[in-house]
Amino acid sequence: MKKSFFITFEGSDGCGKTTQSVLLIKKLKNMGYDVIHTREPGGTVVAEVLRKILLNPESKILPLTELLLYESCRAQHTEEIISPAIKSGKIVICERYADATVAYQGFGRGLDIKMIMNLNKIATNNLVPDLTVYFDSDIRKGLARAKLRGKDRLEKENLLFHKRVRNGYIWLVKKFPKRFIKIDADASIKKISECIFGIVMKKIK
Amino acid sequence: MKKSFFITFEGSDGCGKTTQSVLLIKKLKNMGYDVIHTREPGGTVVAEVLRKILLNPESKILPLTELLLYESCRAQHTEEIISPAIKSGKIVICERYADATVAYQGFGRGLDIKMIMNLNKIATNNLVPDLTVYFDSDIRKGLARAKLRGKDRLEKENLLFHKRVRNGYIWLVKKFPKRFIKIDADASIKKISECIFGIVMKKIK
Repeated sequence: MKKSFFITFEGSDGCGKTTQSVLLIKKLKNMGYDVIHTREPGGTVVAEVLRKILLNPESKILPLTELLLYESCRAQHTEEIISPAIKSGKIVICERYADATVAYQGFGRGLDIKMIMNLNKIATNNLVPDLTVYFDSDIRKGLARAKLRGKDRLEKENLLFHKRVRNGYIWLVKKFPKRFIKIDADASIKKISECIFGIVMKKIK
Repeated sequence: MKKSFFITFEGSDGCGKTTQSVLLIKKLKNMGYDVIHTREPGGTVVAEVLRKILLNPESKILPLTELLLYESCRAQHTEEIISPAIKSGKIVICERYADATVAYQGFGRGLDIKMIMNLNKIATNNLVPDLTVYFDSDIRKGLARAKLRGKDRLEKENLLFHKRVRNGYIWLVKKFPKRFIKIDADASIKKISECIFGIVMKKIK
């Protein structure tokens, strides 16, 4: 029986999470692995509706409301999509997960980190990734890439916000060194893809 | 300066919360009090959208997702509607609040009570009502009244669920005897209205 493996990709909008997910999945599938690709906050019927609310520039959502909405999406997504896939021995690649809330709502918006980590535990039923790849990029370059694909509410926030979010991810990388891998998102797509594949292979075996 | 007062009405669908809210508000307004009437999960733009999701019989919402959705509505509603009214010295009458989640999601759906009370504190920023009126009714009569107004998802649940919810409210009444008043919802509208008005007057003065 195949052993399941849970990988999350973290980083700012436009840092290359989707590109690298697709490349990794292609390689793993070629090797015969059963892989699913998902993302937060979407992935379920409920979460897709909530995604529209959360990313709508017109919504006047307070920081605490936003936090709890993300956690409710996470609860549904984890129990409906991620956990069953892991239980059936698949490799799960998820773009953004609990760490994103620590970085964005905690460090970014200034909500209490301990409270957020407590909520993350509740929402995920304490399901922690086996590996988290953080795409660390020059904030200005990342924002420019994101702008090319059209702005959403989060991307309209100022540069200082994104600097705080980056500090949050760096804090997480240091706090969970066994789980986190920090990747230079400004390297070439090929180089990053090879690096991630190497790490994943080492971890799976 | 007028002293604010925060009243919540709790009880099953069809127990008379809205009727009694309207009667109480009329009396208080006639006496010159500044009163606002609100309800959960609605009351804000965000919450009204969520209300549609929560009460849609087609939504496949897991219990934990539902809990966190209610808490996110609560956070927005408390910070946007209730807290400002209280700060400006108004009387707030709110149909359903944090206790409803203990009764419905805790006792009703079996989620952990301690976790829910912890989430309630987070979502309300620890804003507790000055008075909570619980409308205790014969479950079969209440459901019959609710059915007359068309079913929603919650009302489709079985009788056992509603019995567990009632047990939850009874538990809360005993746990918070200073804050809670239990009313016989099967008494006449006039008698209940006089009873509530008497209690509110005594508490306000």
